[in-house]
Amino acid sequence: MNQHPEYLLNKIKSPADLKVLSLDEMKQVAGEIRHLIIEKDAAVGGHLGPDLGIVELTIAYHYVFNAPGDKIVWDVSHQTYPHKMLTGRAYAWLDPEAYGKVTPYTDPEESPYDYYAIGHTSTSIALATGMAKARDLLGGSEKIMAVIGDGSLTGGLAYEGLNNAATEKGNLVIVINDNQWSIDKNVGGLPVALKKLRDTNGEASDNLFKAMGFDYRYVADGNSLEAMIAAFQDVKDVDHPVVLHVNTLKGKGYEPALANEEAHHWVSPFNLEDDSPKHPAPALTPKKVAVQTIAEAIDRGQENLLAINAAIPGAFNLDGFKEQYPDHYLDVGIAEQESVALAAGFVKAGGRAILFENSTFLQRAFDQLSHDVALNNLPVVMLVGGGGIQANSKTHVGVFDQVMISNLPNWQYLAPTTLAEEKAMINWAIQQKAGPVAIKLPVWPVDEKGSTLEGYQHIHYQKWRAGQGAAILSLGDTFNLGLKAAEELNASLYNPLSANTLDTDCLDHLARHYSVIITLENNVLDGGFGQKVASYLADQPVLVKSFGEKREYTDVDQSLAEILNRNHLTAEQIVNDVKQLLSSKN
Amino acid sequence: MNQHPEYLLNKIKSPADLKVLSLDEMKQVAGEIRHLIIEKDAAVGGHLGPDLGIVELTIAYHYVFNAPGDKIVWDVSHQTYPHKMLTGRAYAWLDPEAYGKVTPYTDPEESPYDYYAIGHTSTSIALATGMAKARDLLGGSEKIMAVIGDGSLTGGLAYEGLNNAATEKGNLVIVINDNQWSIDKNVGGLPVALKKLRDTNGEASDNLFKAMGFDYRYVADGNSLEAMIAAFQDVKDVDHPVVLHVNTLKGKGYEPALANEEAHHWVSPFNLEDDSPKHPAPALTPKKVAVQTIAEAIDRGQENLLAINAAIPGAFNLDGFKEQYPDHYLDVGIAEQESVALAAGFVKAGGRAILFENSTFLQRAFDQLSHDVALNNLPVVMLVGGGGIQANSKTHVGVFDQVMISNLPNWQYLAPTTLAEEKAMINWAIQQKAGPVAIKLPVWPVDEKGSTLEGYQHIHYQKWRAGQGAAILSLGDTFNLGLKAAEELNASLYNPLSANTLDTDCLDHLARHYSVIITLENNVLDGGFGQKVASYLADQPVLVKSFGEKREYTDVDQSLAEILNRNHLTAEQIVNDVKQLLSSKN
Repeated sequence: MNQHPEYLLNKIKSPADLKVLSLDEMKQVAGEIRHLIIEKDAAVGGHLGPDLGIVELTIAYHYVFNAPGDKIVWDVSHQTYPHKMLTGRAYAWLDPEAYGKVTPYTDPEESPYDYYAIGHTSTSIALATGMAKARDLLGGSEKIMAVIGDGSLTGGLAYEGLNNAATEKGNLVIVINDNQWSIDKNVGGLPVALKKLRDTNGEASDNLFKAMGFDYRYVADGNSLEAMIAAFQDVKDVDHPVVLHVNTLKGKGYEPALANEEAHHWVSPFNLEDDSPKHPAPALTPKKVAVQTIAEAIDRGQENLLAINAAIPGAFNLDGFKEQYPDHYLDVGIAEQESVALAAGFVKAGGRAILFENSTFLQRAFDQLSHDVALNNLPVVMLVGGGGIQANSKTHVGVFDQVMISNLPNWQYLAPTTLAEEKAMINWAIQQKAGPVAIKLPVWPVDEKGSTLEGYQHIHYQKWRAGQGAAILSLGDTFNLGLKAAEELNASLYNPLSANTLDTDCLDHLARHYSVIITLENNVLDGGFGQKVASYLADQPVLVKSFGEKREYTDVDQSLAEILNRNHLTAEQIVNDVKQLLSSKN
Repeated sequence: MNQHPEYLLNKIKSPADLKVLSLDEMKQVAGEIRHLIIEKDAAVGGHLGPDLGIVELTIAYHYVFNAPGDKIVWDVSHQTYPHKMLTGRAYAWLDPEAYGKVTPYTDPEESPYDYYAIGHTSTSIALATGMAKARDLLGGSEKIMAVIGDGSLTGGLAYEGLNNAATEKGNLVIVINDNQWSIDKNVGGLPVALKKLRDTNGEASDNLFKAMGFDYRYVADGNSLEAMIAAFQDVKDVDHPVVLHVNTLKGKGYEPALANEEAHHWVSPFNLEDDSPKHPAPALTPKKVAVQTIAEAIDRGQENLLAINAAIPGAFNLDGFKEQYPDHYLDVGIAEQESVALAAGFVKAGGRAILFENSTFLQRAFDQLSHDVALNNLPVVMLVGGGGIQANSKTHVGVFDQVMISNLPNWQYLAPTTLAEEKAMINWAIQQKAGPVAIKLPVWPVDEKGSTLEGYQHIHYQKWRAGQGAAILSLGDTFNLGLKAAEELNASLYNPLSANTLDTDCLDHLARHYSVIITLENNVLDGGFGQKVASYLADQPVLVKSFGEKREYTDVDQSLAEILNRNHLTAEQIVNDVKQLLSSKN
């Protein structure tokens, strides 16, 4: 039920309804939007600070420009709640029963006002420039805008985008939404450049945008609706590329967000009275174990360790670590290419780098994983979070990092089945010198039934259950699933430890003693572990069947259970499939 | 035999021998180095312009600094012939019999003065910053330098590198070797910024390096040995990051290179008398067919086409095209992420983008191939050059693009077997709207025995030879190899067309009618076509064997024949392996 039937927002079905409002009415709408963001986030979680900071900019955009004919590309698109509310989707904030009906990122399948499914940073300038080039070639006249946060500007693609946007021949406006934050505090030389500009009301002598040839303009208070409307009216009809640098306040309107920006970039459900989380964090998680293991190694005297992270320490529980071990922590900004190449340099010069990377964002660093790390066979250690099948936004799926890393030479890609095994693998990885090691941190619930492996050394498949007929190889997260299926089938169960180093002695042995070999992995099947096993055994008579995810993007409209079911990743389906195979063999 | 026993270079076994020379003697060495670069390149080909331009800078470096204790990272490392000659490797230029004994890029396996195998651009600042961080943590005092060309600065990682280097706490010198070129002429806003600085002797008011907080210094004549020595002496002992902007002349000392820089970035063997190539270019190549096909489509009236390229038009025979169809050509600089994301934007706004990408450099764009193109299922067309097994430098292997693209959702990855098939596939791809299409341009010799496929529509395996016992699926370049093996075995031969869309009806049929199925591909096996076929058929009794490359980096010390032989990619080996399998089955 609509909780705010009195809100002006109820009357805004599209930007046309906004354009007839008075300035005061639009300010009232701004207040309503802020209230709704906080109210819904408190109930179900979501991005908070970025959306609170961009309310006036969004209202001004839809007041001045004519979407969807005029086109706006929102970088990352995690700040588009106000945009969604003004383009016919306010019901998903007004009515708690409709909270799930609008997705967290822009999506052209959801609205004609959205042009792309976007969830990764730094792409907006390139996308907008491409749209401008098409307009120029096809003879259109629409206005094109990219809105990019200062945090996203630390990613290299943003700069490649600026380099090419600078020479665009027609209308193109790049709004720098400068709120002085990535997810964590911004790092490096860029914040220095932006601060000089803010401190001088845009007049600083060394202006990197002007240096590249841009028409540069500055708005000191991007949370002033009047100022934003005036700024947009000024640039609306330009015939050349403009950088519009706008100073905004991330978290504006919610005091706790202003007091602690990083913790309020994205929030889990919280209590409105005191900002406390509704669901306390679990005591022990794979990420906490990882950080703890590194800290213990430093405490034991391994002084050459450096934990490297690309702007998301909170996502890895690194906040305490960075306070306690400042010399052993480096945040490179939202810049995964940099994180991996810098780690290569650090290791080459005698240090031990431990990268904390999020699977989906790590995609930006493929070339560095190959050219800088693998080709030079440097013993970089990388802990991958968020890798595996989850009920995520389609913009953030984490099923491709294993494909990209495990098919490269020299990389060892490990997937622990328990926290104890994870710890043993990390402790081994930070000591060994054979080459680069990636460790996929569990994302499905793990328990301690499995391995308490100590002193991990090399890939030797571990037998966890003796059975007959079928042997199941359960990689990483799928251990419990494999155990359940094995018990029901009275099959044997093995822990293969690695996604890309096959224990061929063991596989040959299994091929001789079982009719059917099963592989399970928490990953897309294509380019995965199962295809390697199937291919290795394909010239032997044993049958092999691999379970994993189909090659597709899943989205928030599907629960994890639904996704798993559709991919035959339940014990019941596996048991049935294996029984069929066994009977075909006999 | 040493062709220049009188050269001073003969006495320089290490930089120590350089340090005792007079300025005049060092200038003589500079002349010798230039002569040797031209002489060897004329005989065997190699990078020319970049090396001719950096002679004085290199001599000055080794005169002022103390390598290998002090460390220098050469971006791309295609300009390190002078460095190699000064660090004990001049014999590979003095003696034609030793021409092959030194590799074209830096390589720590070759010399303690080289720290990384490097062949991709824009990584040097990140690598150097990593080395500086390790030095700081471990308490060292060595000086760290990165040398990066202005062309490499258009790549986003260079900027991520600058962003982090700017806040380094100790000694770190970044030399911008500004010769005003990428491989083609530089594009975008960055050249504007650098030109302003050159035009003002480094004094321009909008200085992007100063904006980021760097101590910035300018050398107007980077080909003056005195000026470079003075500049390096000035920065040698700094305790903070410095950008040293050096203006040099690419191709200095070879008139034809000055007259046509792009054509002399890298050269095939040429005649010293008149700069003419020793081996004329073949009339028809897969790349020429690709460009011609796009030109014909525009001529037929498909006005929405845009050929997009990342700074290597020459490598794709696009030089004529860009003159003839300037509205349909865009060079984004060395910036593959930008090329792919911009293509997504262009297609979204109604254009048809055709990307011309080099397999090894395309690795930089993995995230855009997934997040921007595949997730949004935009019908971008991508032509991949240099994809496949070749006797290349290990820094430039092209066997991973198929793995990264073909395992993503929505991408169709096609591999033509003939030029006619390539043309049909391109013509289909630029019309269809189903989703993104990659086409792997042949790199092995193709003849026209195979497909003259017209009106390519969908994946339906084509039977090219009827036989029995074994069926061979020969993907793309491997068609002729498969045909030879099939004839010898009296096996059937199929052309599967696609690396990632399986014709499952056909595979099921084959499984019923043959004992053994063979896959051939010009690619690494892991994550490739063969593993998909093997995995699909693994729960059926038919045996499958896949031929392709092992997961490893190959290098210039191996001929293509050696690499193929080691991977059982000769007709004789395939025939033997298949015979063995057939007899095991009976």
